[in-house]
Amino acid sequence: MDSEITQEIYTENKLAIGVDLGGTKIGIAMVNCNGKIIHYLKNPTDAHKGKEFVINNIIESIHQLLNEAEANLDDISGIGVGIPGQLDVRTGIVHFAPNLPGWEEVPICRIIKEEFNVPVVLENDANAAAWGEKTFGAAKGIRDMVCLTLGTGIGGGLILDGKIYRGHKCGAGEIGHIIVNKDGPDCHCGGIGCLEAYSSATGIKNRVADKIKYIKENSPELLADTGIDITNIRLVDIFQRARENDPLVKDIVNEAIEYLGVGITILVNLLNPEMVVLVGGIANEGENILTPIRNFVFKRAMKAMLNDLKIDLGKLKEKAGVLGAAALLWQKNN
Amino acid sequence: MDSEITQEIYTENKLAIGVDLGGTKIGIAMVNCNGKIIHYLKNPTDAHKGKEFVINNIIESIHQLLNEAEANLDDISGIGVGIPGQLDVRTGIVHFAPNLPGWEEVPICRIIKEEFNVPVVLENDANAAAWGEKTFGAAKGIRDMVCLTLGTGIGGGLILDGKIYRGHKCGAGEIGHIIVNKDGPDCHCGGIGCLEAYSSATGIKNRVADKIKYIKENSPELLADTGIDITNIRLVDIFQRARENDPLVKDIVNEAIEYLGVGITILVNLLNPEMVVLVGGIANEGENILTPIRNFVFKRAMKAMLNDLKIDLGKLKEKAGVLGAAALLWQKNN
Repeated sequence: MDSEITQEIYTENKLAIGVDLGGTKIGIAMVNCNGKIIHYLKNPTDAHKGKEFVINNIIESIHQLLNEAEANLDDISGIGVGIPGQLDVRTGIVHFAPNLPGWEEVPICRIIKEEFNVPVVLENDANAAAWGEKTFGAAKGIRDMVCLTLGTGIGGGLILDGKIYRGHKCGAGEIGHIIVNKDGPDCHCGGIGCLEAYSSATGIKNRVADKIKYIKENSPELLADTGIDITNIRLVDIFQRARENDPLVKDIVNEAIEYLGVGITILVNLLNPEMVVLVGGIANEGENILTPIRNFVFKRAMKAMLNDLKIDLGKLKEKAGVLGAAALLWQKNN
Repeated sequence: MDSEITQEIYTENKLAIGVDLGGTKIGIAMVNCNGKIIHYLKNPTDAHKGKEFVINNIIESIHQLLNEAEANLDDISGIGVGIPGQLDVRTGIVHFAPNLPGWEEVPICRIIKEEFNVPVVLENDANAAAWGEKTFGAAKGIRDMVCLTLGTGIGGGLILDGKIYRGHKCGAGEIGHIIVNKDGPDCHCGGIGCLEAYSSATGIKNRVADKIKYIKENSPELLADTGIDITNIRLVDIFQRARENDPLVKDIVNEAIEYLGVGITILVNLLNPEMVVLVGGIANEGENILTPIRNFVFKRAMKAMLNDLKIDLGKLKEKAGVLGAAALLWQKNN
């Protein structure tokens, strides 16, 4: 274990850099301890170009940020990096990242530290987003909260007793892989009937595409031209059609939202959080998903868990990850 | 908040008293800090006689324990009390206990402290059992573990980062109220399709009774004398019949065990524990439930969560509660 990675850092008067590494883009921000973004930039990840390219891309992007912000490394408390994958925050090593080809056992903290010589901390991307909302966003001041990242997949971050909860091997928070129907559709995780298979963008699109294919093969007379290119379905279009009561998508969207209600009810009965925060692409549907989810949870969860419970959208939008990654530098014991 | 309730107690060379208050009996033990039970006794709760009677019953039982053990209050670090209900460990007040008539807003810590003048700590009974297994039993040395109490109902205790996790209002750990089938049977909690409705002793018995009633009403010719008195079904008999492939109960028992697998898979994907411990009456079925549960979880949970994962029976049996309650006296910050 590299003690410099886990050291406690108290230099709150300084700035921190947050990196949010995604499969398609890298977001980087320079942030002060009040959550103000001093400078922000976004570059394509070009993940297909491989591990070395992406690592260099991160390093160059940090240099670019420092240059554009006319900042000096002396002004920086450190760098927090959020990465989507299996990793160990204590050693700073990424074990495996499904959306980043070649990323296996990458000592990313050590690599970045060698370049910039400031403390570097690592976190799972969903935990970083949760930490952002907890530190600067919708869940400011909340000790016990659950953050769902509703995007291509469904991820999650658990903030319990005021700290990020990571579990035995930094794997905790896989909210997308709550089983909501033991006899449901296969999930890419190897499981069956996971929340992600019903309620993620990919899950919803797959179910619509499967339904169109099924009708075409079995009852083509029922299907006029849908106007949907099943190789390129957009989620916003599906939600728009659902609002217009299009029978092709309505049940699928309703079920996606109902299963989000099931998953959140499970979280609420299990963890008794004060707040549930929804972030990510699907959360952009706003009240269209928030109202039915709240109705489900407040009807189905145990009464004792509903005292004070708030279910809300995140406030930081696509900046939650960079803000949370930066804020890791100012947290003790995380 | 009564600061004497939450004070840190370091007098590990002393003894502690653990009280496990149940709806039918009170278990009380004098315990040393190695988990050795110096003296143990069990009295009927007589819960139907009301709150005052039961409180007095607890106090008299503690006096009885001290007398029988020929111990002195000077030898005692304090008293830990595990109670099945909604309570606040910080204030030491029991808000509500469904199996203890009249128990509403009972300041049990203050009452016991007034009698014995030693520190008194309160805990939910399932958390106390989990803490017992963590401190002296199957999960000794484990930081992240989930304990399921499989009895009349299904309860749970979450030990996360080495501490009891209680959530916002001390309500966390309601593992019995994980929704495993959103369209399933009604649950007494007000929800639908909870794990408890399928896999608790009460759930299994109810489902067998409902099935017998249904067959009697609809196809009585299919049903020879079952030999089952549906007003007085014993769980051990149901499990015995299931092992003998009795079609009347087999599917219900298999489904009960399968849904336990679903619930534990959800816990594993969500919390990434190192260990899952099963205690309570149904856990007495031993390998008959452990093997199919393990098979389900190791097939259906995410691979990353299965490193090191152990699923085992508790070791302390019916003493888990008293041992855990006593051990609360020796834990910092809980």
